[in-house]
Amino acid sequence: MKIIDGGVCAAKGFTANGIHCGIRKSRTKRDLSLIYSEKPASVACVYTTNLVKGAPLSVTKANVADGKAQAVICNSGNANTCNADGIEVANKMCEIAGKALGIAPADVVVASTGVIGQPLDVTPIANKIDELVHGLGDHSDLAAEGIMTTDTVKKDLAVSFTVGGVECKLGGIAKGSGMIHPNMATMLVFLTTDCAISSAMLQKALSSDIKNTFNMVSVDGDTSTNDMVAVLANGMAGNQEITAEGPDFDAFMKALNTVTVHLCRSIAGDGEGATKLLECVVTGAAEESVAKTVAKSVICSSLTKAAMFGADANWGRVLCAIGYSGAPVDIHKVDVAFKSPAGTVEVCKNGAGIEFSEEEAKKVLLEKEITIQVELNSGTAGAVAWGCDLTYEYVKINGDYRT
Amino acid sequence: MKIIDGGVCAAKGFTANGIHCGIRKSRTKRDLSLIYSEKPASVACVYTTNLVKGAPLSVTKANVADGKAQAVICNSGNANTCNADGIEVANKMCEIAGKALGIAPADVVVASTGVIGQPLDVTPIANKIDELVHGLGDHSDLAAEGIMTTDTVKKDLAVSFTVGGVECKLGGIAKGSGMIHPNMATMLVFLTTDCAISSAMLQKALSSDIKNTFNMVSVDGDTSTNDMVAVLANGMAGNQEITAEGPDFDAFMKALNTVTVHLCRSIAGDGEGATKLLECVVTGAAEESVAKTVAKSVICSSLTKAAMFGADANWGRVLCAIGYSGAPVDIHKVDVAFKSPAGTVEVCKNGAGIEFSEEEAKKVLLEKEITIQVELNSGTAGAVAWGCDLTYEYVKINGDYRT
Repeated sequence: MKIIDGGVCAAKGFTANGIHCGIRKSRTKRDLSLIYSEKPASVACVYTTNLVKGAPLSVTKANVADGKAQAVICNSGNANTCNADGIEVANKMCEIAGKALGIAPADVVVASTGVIGQPLDVTPIANKIDELVHGLGDHSDLAAEGIMTTDTVKKDLAVSFTVGGVECKLGGIAKGSGMIHPNMATMLVFLTTDCAISSAMLQKALSSDIKNTFNMVSVDGDTSTNDMVAVLANGMAGNQEITAEGPDFDAFMKALNTVTVHLCRSIAGDGEGATKLLECVVTGAAEESVAKTVAKSVICSSLTKAAMFGADANWGRVLCAIGYSGAPVDIHKVDVAFKSPAGTVEVCKNGAGIEFSEEEAKKVLLEKEITIQVELNSGTAGAVAWGCDLTYEYVKINGDYRT
Repeated sequence: MKIIDGGVCAAKGFTANGIHCGIRKSRTKRDLSLIYSEKPASVACVYTTNLVKGAPLSVTKANVADGKAQAVICNSGNANTCNADGIEVANKMCEIAGKALGIAPADVVVASTGVIGQPLDVTPIANKIDELVHGLGDHSDLAAEGIMTTDTVKKDLAVSFTVGGVECKLGGIAKGSGMIHPNMATMLVFLTTDCAISSAMLQKALSSDIKNTFNMVSVDGDTSTNDMVAVLANGMAGNQEITAEGPDFDAFMKALNTVTVHLCRSIAGDGEGATKLLECVVTGAAEESVAKTVAKSVICSSLTKAAMFGADANWGRVLCAIGYSGAPVDIHKVDVAFKSPAGTVEVCKNGAGIEFSEEEAKKVLLEKEITIQVELNSGTAGAVAWGCDLTYEYVKINGDYRT
């Protein structure tokens, strides 16, 4: 497997574009993206578990029910959620895109992200769809920009890998900054691959992968209403279609996981106002579910997040978060260490503090990527969760988001 | 029932004091408090559900097992938690207090609050215990100061009420600022009453009351390791002892609830860095459990909390928090309004946005106490939860708490 350029356009037959159509007032921010596959593709999706679901999710769900799709249209600046005419508008977006691309509206995945509860006017989309379609090309970057909201960096990755001796490619773009919380399909992620794989196996791969990737990311504990992960596989690599588990499926899963883990880390590290990527690595758990619960509890703790912002080795807060996680843990066996490119500092052994150099700890915690290592000393299972620090900037961004 | 002065010293036979003994470096901040009852009292306690429990909680639990106590000693500045010698130190605190007061160490309730994982030296306590005891008097205020950590205001209330024609009094002090989360006995609260009530009925009253009071408060979603609510009832009012349910018990419950609701609101409004008290009132629920889950989810939402800080009527975040609460709610029936002393603004009807004046909404949300009204239109059950906004100051306080 190899990291390659190209994002969602890395795989054969995929083109993309992103433009400013006018949903956002700022003319410098792209607000409409399109991803297109030359050939109809297998499709799989996962969605937010929030009971308040954006209208685009309902429409996408209906459109992908046959396991096929050929394009993705997504706007930023307005979530098209909690609006009386939401479904109508989302369907209209599919019609507009389908007509311009010469495909059925039912082969379009539709997504929206932005403010909730403000009507979305499709006029700017209708007006600019031809410009968007005509500009389709090797423009993964532009599509990545078009789906960003409070994101500060574009998030993408692509890999090449081999299935049955045939080179395949898989790439993705992601949007995600605030409102990201584990245990649901969060953020917007669009993945494309030229690997031939049935929609059933594609869904199996995605549903399995997100358990250890997107469901283990938290920025602020809030769960968005609009987020989804969609993957399109158009089979143009020419491998024998993957229709069952086996070495080919494993190779596909590995490629998928490489891309999704990278996107998870990008999303967490670019959490609203974040200055640091936090990773909690739990080892020595009796069961995987315990490790996951502990890792997520630590990553979600406001107090731990604020301490990391301040580069304060306040490990008591980590232990505290383990204690209230709800997982059955023997606290008297827990070891905690902080790790970063600057080194590793052990701060807690058997549930009690040990002496450590505050100076050294500060050095470790001043880095941009911090790993909180939790050894439970009770088994062999483990888990990883990703998050970010809690900063003044988070409050600033969210204290007045709408204006 | 009448609101009266006196805090924990309002009830007959109770005295209190608070001093600076030297656990904290700052000589201007009291760090050791004592509450004393002339006569042995019935006692009831509830404790944090965090698996990491402060050593003082274990010692208190053992001491109150017989349903009797006569004093409370509490220090701030150090939680005496996750220390190898924690139990020993907590027991030593009871010995020191018991000896100075001439009572058994086993009749002392002990509590500590502050940093986790730093050994607590009892020397300052031993050195100053005589000063603390000799100063006992009508000093509820000093005791309230001595238990404060990042609190900015003292929290107390007392009421007088009648049981079987006899006037009784009940008062309390509280500490609580960060690390306060529903579903456990959170914060430190000490209550005293001269009402005669058996320890079994006292425990019943307390355990029942906290379900709708201290378990419905959240500041940052983190659950402390050290928090407890303790109530001492010394019977000196002279009423016939309450030993069963009935009108006397109801009168007691009402007095208790008046004090605890006030303390809840004080704690939430004084959340770390808070500029506003948020109250979420849920009505029209099919079941109380649904109302509680919804109210807590809204109060805990970082995005809603940040919006309230910015006086931004971003009701989509409220709906979003209802949607991910996990409670079975028909989102299409939900109405939301913001209310404050400046007025009421309806912002959402039947799960969709309605037109409202942004100017009027701003006026409502610039007040210090905001009520978020959620009508589920699905039944007759309701619940109230309390919290606060999320501010720059919260991050500042918690980014470098230890130094």
